[in-house]
Amino acid sequence: TPVSGILGGSHVTDNRLIKCCGGNMAVSRPPEDDPSHNSPHSPGRGMNGAGGPTAMMDPLEDPVPGVGTYEDFNTIDWVREKSKDRDRHREITSKSKESMGALLHRISDAFSGWLLMLLVGLMSGALAGGIDISAHWLTDMKEGVCLNGFWFNHEHCCWTSNEPTFKERDKCPDWKSWAELIVGTGEGGFAYVVNYMMFMFWALLFSFLAVTLVKSFAPYACGSGIPEIKTILSGFIIRGYLGKWTLIVKTITLVLAVSSGLSLGKEGPLVHVACCCANILCHLFTKYRKNEAKRREVLSAAAAVGVSVAFGAPIGGVLFSLEEVSYYFPLKTLWRSFFAALVAAFTLRSINPFGNSRLVLFYVEFHAPWHLLELGPFILLGIFGGLWGALFIRANIAWCRRRKTTLLGHYPIVEVLVVAGVTALVSFPNSYTRMSGAELIKELFNDCSLLDSSQLCRYNAGNGLADRPADSGLYTALWQLSLALLFKMGITVVTFGMKVPSGLFIPSMAVGAIAGRLLGVGMEQLAYYNHDWAIFRGWCTPGADCITPGLYAMVGAAACLGGVTRMTVSLVVIMFELTGGLEYIVPLMAATMTSKWVADAFGREGIYEAHIRLNGYPFLEPKEEFEHKSLAVDVMRPRRADPALAVLTQEGMTVEEAEALVASTRYSGFPVVVSQESQRLVGFVLRRDLLISIDNARQRQEGVVSSSQVLFTEHPPAQAADAPPPVRLRSLLDLSPFTVADHTPMDITVDIFRKLGLRQCLVTHNGRLLGIITKKDILKHMAQMANRDPDSILFN
Amino acid sequence: TPVSGILGGSHVTDNRLIKCCGGNMAVSRPPEDDPSHNSPHSPGRGMNGAGGPTAMMDPLEDPVPGVGTYEDFNTIDWVREKSKDRDRHREITSKSKESMGALLHRISDAFSGWLLMLLVGLMSGALAGGIDISAHWLTDMKEGVCLNGFWFNHEHCCWTSNEPTFKERDKCPDWKSWAELIVGTGEGGFAYVVNYMMFMFWALLFSFLAVTLVKSFAPYACGSGIPEIKTILSGFIIRGYLGKWTLIVKTITLVLAVSSGLSLGKEGPLVHVACCCANILCHLFTKYRKNEAKRREVLSAAAAVGVSVAFGAPIGGVLFSLEEVSYYFPLKTLWRSFFAALVAAFTLRSINPFGNSRLVLFYVEFHAPWHLLELGPFILLGIFGGLWGALFIRANIAWCRRRKTTLLGHYPIVEVLVVAGVTALVSFPNSYTRMSGAELIKELFNDCSLLDSSQLCRYNAGNGLADRPADSGLYTALWQLSLALLFKMGITVVTFGMKVPSGLFIPSMAVGAIAGRLLGVGMEQLAYYNHDWAIFRGWCTPGADCITPGLYAMVGAAACLGGVTRMTVSLVVIMFELTGGLEYIVPLMAATMTSKWVADAFGREGIYEAHIRLNGYPFLEPKEEFEHKSLAVDVMRPRRADPALAVLTQEGMTVEEAEALVASTRYSGFPVVVSQESQRLVGFVLRRDLLISIDNARQRQEGVVSSSQVLFTEHPPAQAADAPPPVRLRSLLDLSPFTVADHTPMDITVDIFRKLGLRQCLVTHNGRLLGIITKKDILKHMAQMANRDPDSILFN
Repeated sequence: TPVSGILGGSHVTDNRLIKCCGGNMAVSRPPEDDPSHNSPHSPGRGMNGAGGPTAMMDPLEDPVPGVGTYEDFNTIDWVREKSKDRDRHREITSKSKESMGALLHRISDAFSGWLLMLLVGLMSGALAGGIDISAHWLTDMKEGVCLNGFWFNHEHCCWTSNEPTFKERDKCPDWKSWAELIVGTGEGGFAYVVNYMMFMFWALLFSFLAVTLVKSFAPYACGSGIPEIKTILSGFIIRGYLGKWTLIVKTITLVLAVSSGLSLGKEGPLVHVACCCANILCHLFTKYRKNEAKRREVLSAAAAVGVSVAFGAPIGGVLFSLEEVSYYFPLKTLWRSFFAALVAAFTLRSINPFGNSRLVLFYVEFHAPWHLLELGPFILLGIFGGLWGALFIRANIAWCRRRKTTLLGHYPIVEVLVVAGVTALVSFPNSYTRMSGAELIKELFNDCSLLDSSQLCRYNAGNGLADRPADSGLYTALWQLSLALLFKMGITVVTFGMKVPSGLFIPSMAVGAIAGRLLGVGMEQLAYYNHDWAIFRGWCTPGADCITPGLYAMVGAAACLGGVTRMTVSLVVIMFELTGGLEYIVPLMAATMTSKWVADAFGREGIYEAHIRLNGYPFLEPKEEFEHKSLAVDVMRPRRADPALAVLTQEGMTVEEAEALVASTRYSGFPVVVSQESQRLVGFVLRRDLLISIDNARQRQEGVVSSSQVLFTEHPPAQAADAPPPVRLRSLLDLSPFTVADHTPMDITVDIFRKLGLRQCLVTHNGRLLGIITKKDILKHMAQMANRDPDSILFN
Repeated sequence: TPVSGILGGSHVTDNRLIKCCGGNMAVSRPPEDDPSHNSPHSPGRGMNGAGGPTAMMDPLEDPVPGVGTYEDFNTIDWVREKSKDRDRHREITSKSKESMGALLHRISDAFSGWLLMLLVGLMSGALAGGIDISAHWLTDMKEGVCLNGFWFNHEHCCWTSNEPTFKERDKCPDWKSWAELIVGTGEGGFAYVVNYMMFMFWALLFSFLAVTLVKSFAPYACGSGIPEIKTILSGFIIRGYLGKWTLIVKTITLVLAVSSGLSLGKEGPLVHVACCCANILCHLFTKYRKNEAKRREVLSAAAAVGVSVAFGAPIGGVLFSLEEVSYYFPLKTLWRSFFAALVAAFTLRSINPFGNSRLVLFYVEFHAPWHLLELGPFILLGIFGGLWGALFIRANIAWCRRRKTTLLGHYPIVEVLVVAGVTALVSFPNSYTRMSGAELIKELFNDCSLLDSSQLCRYNAGNGLADRPADSGLYTALWQLSLALLFKMGITVVTFGMKVPSGLFIPSMAVGAIAGRLLGVGMEQLAYYNHDWAIFRGWCTPGADCITPGLYAMVGAAACLGGVTRMTVSLVVIMFELTGGLEYIVPLMAATMTSKWVADAFGREGIYEAHIRLNGYPFLEPKEEFEHKSLAVDVMRPRRADPALAVLTQEGMTVEEAEALVASTRYSGFPVVVSQESQRLVGFVLRRDLLISIDNARQRQEGVVSSSQVLFTEHPPAQAADAPPPVRLRSLLDLSPFTVADHTPMDITVDIFRKLGLRQCLVTHNGRLLGIITKKDILKHMAQMANRDPDSILFN
């Protein structure tokens, strides 16, 4: 019998590993055991009994339980899922004319999407608020404690203090640094050492708790989650990745990881948290629980919600989801995402975690306009951002690959503790590294006003506000910033990818903001001392306030973030929402564009795509064009040397033969043809459905034996009277499998796979079945073409 | 011979009509004669000699001129066009390694898209600025003239006046009303009549000029252009619709039409103008000139540019293009659109047509926050907007259908003159209708400050700013506004669709803004006189400034515009960009959502889709789900009763037979099969390509006679020695035609058509060719399902 070529499965062993952050022991137990999906409502399994695509063909037959569902680490069939949802919708619509109850059902069904969005927005906003508040509290805990109650953070503790300035208020008597508590005084060398020790102690404790919780309860909670969410949104199934345990553990450990002072942000993980919320809330609505495609629409919206609460930028969040994360993003989802993002943003604002009634994390208001000549330094920042982005991706991927392949991956706890220890040790002496990433960025974006007490605003104010020679305090600050820049650049490379929740936005932005501020102050001083130079004449006259170092910091932050993630529109819009001024879009755009071009010159993948490839997820990048001249016939299985395609015939095969064919191959599906000779295609049947149905028939249907015929035809052929009853399986058949001709160029085939979200496609020549192309075949072919290891693609 | 069923053409006569605005004589001469595309560079024709999709198959054969191009009023093949561009790109990339020149070519090719975007932005921004300035000048011309120079508008004329207030300055001595010029005084009844007469004279003159220019030089310049642009972007070809004559005439007549005081806006037409600019600029770059798909990417960006300059809202413009206009919008286009939109916005700002250095048309800044209870009136406004939208669409479509079918359509000039005359006659006495739509909206959005001299801000200011009982002046204004509302509602229905450039945004917004302002003032007075009511207690205490009528106007404007166009995200984002405050998004969103739901309850089509259907364009709405249970076999041709499908065989047919088959049918393409018996599909050949190639062979290839064989096979079969040489046409074959199985549900088939942009798709049963489905078949089937006239779809 012909035994080759369809949907080659890669899971030979039962012990399936998914190697998200953390190396070769990342998920030491199979994910099926993850506590988050043993409930009967777990995704995918919840679809039992829905009838699936088969219901339409044979509505009278009872669907066999399990048929039409997906196994873990498999790709969904978008076309069928969407078709199934349309069937469901059609049924509700047609029934609604019959009774009042059915009409109400139709209306509630129509509004359930909006209700779900509202709930996702509320829940994510509330969680984000909780995370902000707790992280703030724990971060302050590293420095001291409030005597009024240990649960107050520094700011809250001193809320009632009557001191007039912020600086004085910070020293309120209720707030004690650890040195003050332990040795009785906050001054002197010994107190400094005590504070240093306590800072390190808390940092190590928090990071230890974080990594232990992740390792013990929810291995999927590590990392930023965005590469996996991209993969899930493209149709892959990872059970438990968005489950309730992941949500709980990720929320807690995110707070711990951020508070421990590691060089990581909470923005990426917030996207994961929002997606978990959405996935869990989907269980409340049958429409979304039972349909993988509909669920992914909700998840796309949740990604927007995550960014919306991370930055207070709802429009930017929606564009982020559209540009960076989503795979299937119909216009209806755009509108709903926007709604959910707004709800979340306003929920967060009503919790008011930043205490300033502002929606946004770093609210900035610049007063001076920028000059066209400043585009020069802005483009320089763009080049820096692009170079840093390309370098960071290479270094980080090399480090993560090392983690995967060496002993390093076996000791995630030790790794985290070492990195956290080094971070804390180096951070404490430098005030710019000691403060959290978000605070640092806020400080760097700051437009110095007259009364500003920040060290970065120490100008000799003798000549008034506009004319600003730097003070020695500012020079000290610049030195500290330069050291902070080098340290951040190094430590972020080893931090991202460790077994704790870790986002990249804040560290990348911090690097860029430091570089930008340095350049900005440099430009400012250059202009001050040389305002007679030709380039400064006319706009930087003495007395005019011409250069805003805060704007440079912002442009630098955008450039670096752009270099690392390759975001474009969404990045500019997020930044625009932070400042609220259309004026500043042009510098941001110039820097982001330059940064993307420079970084693309070194490699077209952003950090998320690089991690997807590192982990071998089956992700067909929608942005990358297929550039080669191959034809479908070059990519399809079986190859020329292989045995012929394994096919079932629509009649004439016995149960035994069919089972033997299935047992002798590992393919996930089999084409059904009219006869072996004609090779004319009838349909396609999935391995899982076939096995379940034959088993079911053997157990329940009377008289079915190994020599019973397997029939895929509509009408049973005449049989001998004493023959055993046939097993009729036409209802399993996908009667409209996608086919392409053998001469179809692969660029078109790839386009079809992407746009329609196919899992496999059959190849015909002049109407005869010739072979099959699966998503994995395409990914392997693309890897081959790019001279990469084609076996790096792990899953179907 | 079998003679039925493929690509049924609808153009029996040569006199092709495209009935955009203006009834049955709209384009009385065939558009091929339109001056704008007789140049050798006209779209579509420019592709001669490019080799088309065939070049890849047989690179050695010289392509026959004309093969691979499209005829007017046909649909492009997205898949082939994109594939062609990838081939081109591949060729440039592979050559670039050979020489320095080729490398430079590759780089310039990569940046040509950005350069094109820059040019489109600059040109559209400059044109929009010119249009704004000229329209302002001509509008003022209706009231008077500047003695310093007739080319100054009122504001410019009085620029140097030294009067302290705006009101006084408006009466500067250099500016003379017509009465002052003609009868020597601006006061008294006679002067009023003279001004009235002059106002009507100018209105009639401008509208006469506009309609005459449109009718004589560029019939495609009429209407808003958005329905046609949507259709073009979906792949339809309308030669000259985006040509240079259309651009010139539309720009001039838009100024005239706006200035004539007709109830129309310039926003929609600006999108058309921007698309014309883009199309013309495409000719500078081979990449875009020769590829219909690439050109459409640029046009999508141009649509964003149009809205960006219309409202000063670049992000909103991009979302408008994405949500409302575009069909194929890859992420690369998103980023480029954003760039072009920004360039255009800043070009416009540097021209500064509004004289306020603002980017936006109606800049508003509200100071009071809104209260949650106000959502009630906002939702009421949403309901009003939805009802008005649904009503407007029905009334307008009924009127346009009347214009198409009755004598009305024969006299476009008379129609325009009558409507302009009535508009001017009714408008003059009421100051709110006399001012232009944009000014009216600005006035209505206004948040009354203390010094505001507008009539809408006449409050008894005795108790200070916050507490505001209305003055009798305000009541007069409310009466005038109510009359203006009724008039605007009526006149807009007959105005939109006349044979002048006419946009809908401003009139719709004006209707909504009036309604909103009325409700807002009503709420304000209610709160003032009843602040002890339970609902007002707590937030509307005496002395508190609690209700902002300007915000109500804005919400009303959004609701009405949403009801008419069914825009959602883009509308809210445009409004957000006008105010700049995230706070006000929630009211806008509530109103827009309500308005859409209410309007959708009466019919799911927005005004643009309704006009597309009215005009019978072949547009497959991407937003509308296909809701029926039909299968591909129910929709395909031939139907059961019809004769079999007209097919060519890959060998064995003579030139004469092939020509007879083509001559006996009107189909645009023919499947090629292995043999009539097997019906196994080999490929697909287009009628146009086949005829051109046979003609070419007869003329150029020696010995080709009527009995020569037509061969589509790769290798020629053995022939008798004395047989005439065969005509080998394999290079014409599309070897990868799309096929679906006969049991494929139509919802999936429609999805495939939409996502891949197909023109036709072949239907097979168990590997045998059975029939064909064209885009037109699908549209007809959808029309049938919705109980509409299936013959209303005019074009292929």
